[in-house]
Amino acid sequence: MIARVALIGLGTMGPGIAARLSRGGLAVTAHDTSDAAVERARAMLPVAGGALDRLGVEPPATGAGEIRFAASIAEAVDGADLVIENVPEIVEIKAAVYRAVDPLISAQTIVATDTSGIPISGLQGHISHPERFVGMHWSNPPHIIPMIEVIGGERTAPATVAAIRDLIRSLGLLPVVLKKDLPGFVENRVLYALLREAVDLVERGVIDAEDLDTCVSWGIGYKIAVIGPMALLDMAGLDIYRSVSSFLNADLADRKDISPAVEERFAAKKLGIKTGEGMYSYTPERIAALQADRAGKLIAIRRILEGRA
Amino acid sequence: MIARVALIGLGTMGPGIAARLSRGGLAVTAHDTSDAAVERARAMLPVAGGALDRLGVEPPATGAGEIRFAASIAEAVDGADLVIENVPEIVEIKAAVYRAVDPLISAQTIVATDTSGIPISGLQGHISHPERFVGMHWSNPPHIIPMIEVIGGERTAPATVAAIRDLIRSLGLLPVVLKKDLPGFVENRVLYALLREAVDLVERGVIDAEDLDTCVSWGIGYKIAVIGPMALLDMAGLDIYRSVSSFLNADLADRKDISPAVEERFAAKKLGIKTGEGMYSYTPERIAALQADRAGKLIAIRRILEGRA
Repeated sequence: MIARVALIGLGTMGPGIAARLSRGGLAVTAHDTSDAAVERARAMLPVAGGALDRLGVEPPATGAGEIRFAASIAEAVDGADLVIENVPEIVEIKAAVYRAVDPLISAQTIVATDTSGIPISGLQGHISHPERFVGMHWSNPPHIIPMIEVIGGERTAPATVAAIRDLIRSLGLLPVVLKKDLPGFVENRVLYALLREAVDLVERGVIDAEDLDTCVSWGIGYKIAVIGPMALLDMAGLDIYRSVSSFLNADLADRKDISPAVEERFAAKKLGIKTGEGMYSYTPERIAALQADRAGKLIAIRRILEGRA
Repeated sequence: MIARVALIGLGTMGPGIAARLSRGGLAVTAHDTSDAAVERARAMLPVAGGALDRLGVEPPATGAGEIRFAASIAEAVDGADLVIENVPEIVEIKAAVYRAVDPLISAQTIVATDTSGIPISGLQGHISHPERFVGMHWSNPPHIIPMIEVIGGERTAPATVAAIRDLIRSLGLLPVVLKKDLPGFVENRVLYALLREAVDLVERGVIDAEDLDTCVSWGIGYKIAVIGPMALLDMAGLDIYRSVSSFLNADLADRKDISPAVEERFAAKKLGIKTGEGMYSYTPERIAALQADRAGKLIAIRRILEGRA
């Protein structure tokens, strides 16, 4: 049974993951090499906790688990049943963490990576017990989105996949187990397919960014939130899908490289919210208002989707 | 000003469109060559009206507009300021309607097509006043989704696009004006890009249909409903998108033909809900329960997205 979790790397996802695991009764020990990341995480934990309160996520009878911050990887993984690696998406950085963790853990400890799409089979070679290594891809924001992808690599034991799947279920969350290990897994492959076409349409001047967002949020997001893609095919009719895809598939974007619209903004350091400009422009006040508005809507909608509104 | 609307072709979208226009105070005269389609529409109107009640869509002070069923195209278009063509997605069927309507309407009457993606420039050649011809693509279910694409063809007058955009706004709905006319417009291009990858993943055995739906509904639909694709790029950071798309774009599905998973089901007459089997299997009870559940969730979520919950 998994009771103690070490979280290595706090970054964007760390505070939400720690808050959610703790709310499920697990003891979490977190470590990050950056003091700033630790300070940010400390500040974010009550925010994530507040969102969990509004989502109605109650701790088990045993109570919420403790969250501690450890000064070293060794301290973080001491006694852990599960180590979750959440460091930047660069193989060498991840491999260094696995090599550091490897001599400190027992053969029973599961090591999970929160990579958003680096294949597991390549990563698990950096650890002595690849059969205990698995992908556990949380969706951002991790304390609000209840779905987690579980990905075994070539050498991952089925029991390891099952243990993570069962842990996710025991938290009241939704594990989605992939049967193959491929770049981007499922969530990001489908998202990047959507984004490839969407960016292309804006770049080609077919539609303004704001109208694209209105169109896709209402015409696709809102609908797909309630009716998944396969269910939507059944609703529209496979004959209709067949007829339209017979000419439309050949006309869709299939760019293999990076969109020039993205390259230009990258070169101009227009990276989005973090630089105040990207596809849109932002003021600090606007960012704060957007974040509060989006979190509030996601929380209210999740209760409806779960039939608890 | 547009006060009287003729709706030619009832099909799937007709009853919802008629109900929504009527609720906006417009007088609607509808015609379909199929008596069965008219009977189905009569039965559906109170259902759509009930959904509009639950959405809080009030009629204007002048009251809801009358909905009449006409025995002929001539009777339907008599005195209409706007004709909405909603017949099957076959150019020859649409062209026959335009030719029938053409001698019956004034030069001021706007003719709009609800095609879901046939370019407007090709369709408008079948009518004497192509400058008064425009695309008005409602999203299904049309009484529930508030976004409507507006598409001008090469010969559409800007004033015609503006008139339809203003009509949509006056109804309290969200017009999205395209700046170019291309197959699938924006909504269906982005949806088909998403579906191309999703179908491919299920077909390749990466994930079961049900898990795919869970993953995409929560990881993409739920999020995109609140945060449009361009806003999501800004939230994730264009540097992150650039880094991932630099390798992932080249690995995504770019099938030009119809997916074998779809062809096989089509050949076996497994077309979805209407045949009781498609990507999933259905009983009549299950279909009724799904429809009620989905409509209820869409209505509740729309109120949240509009800040009215």
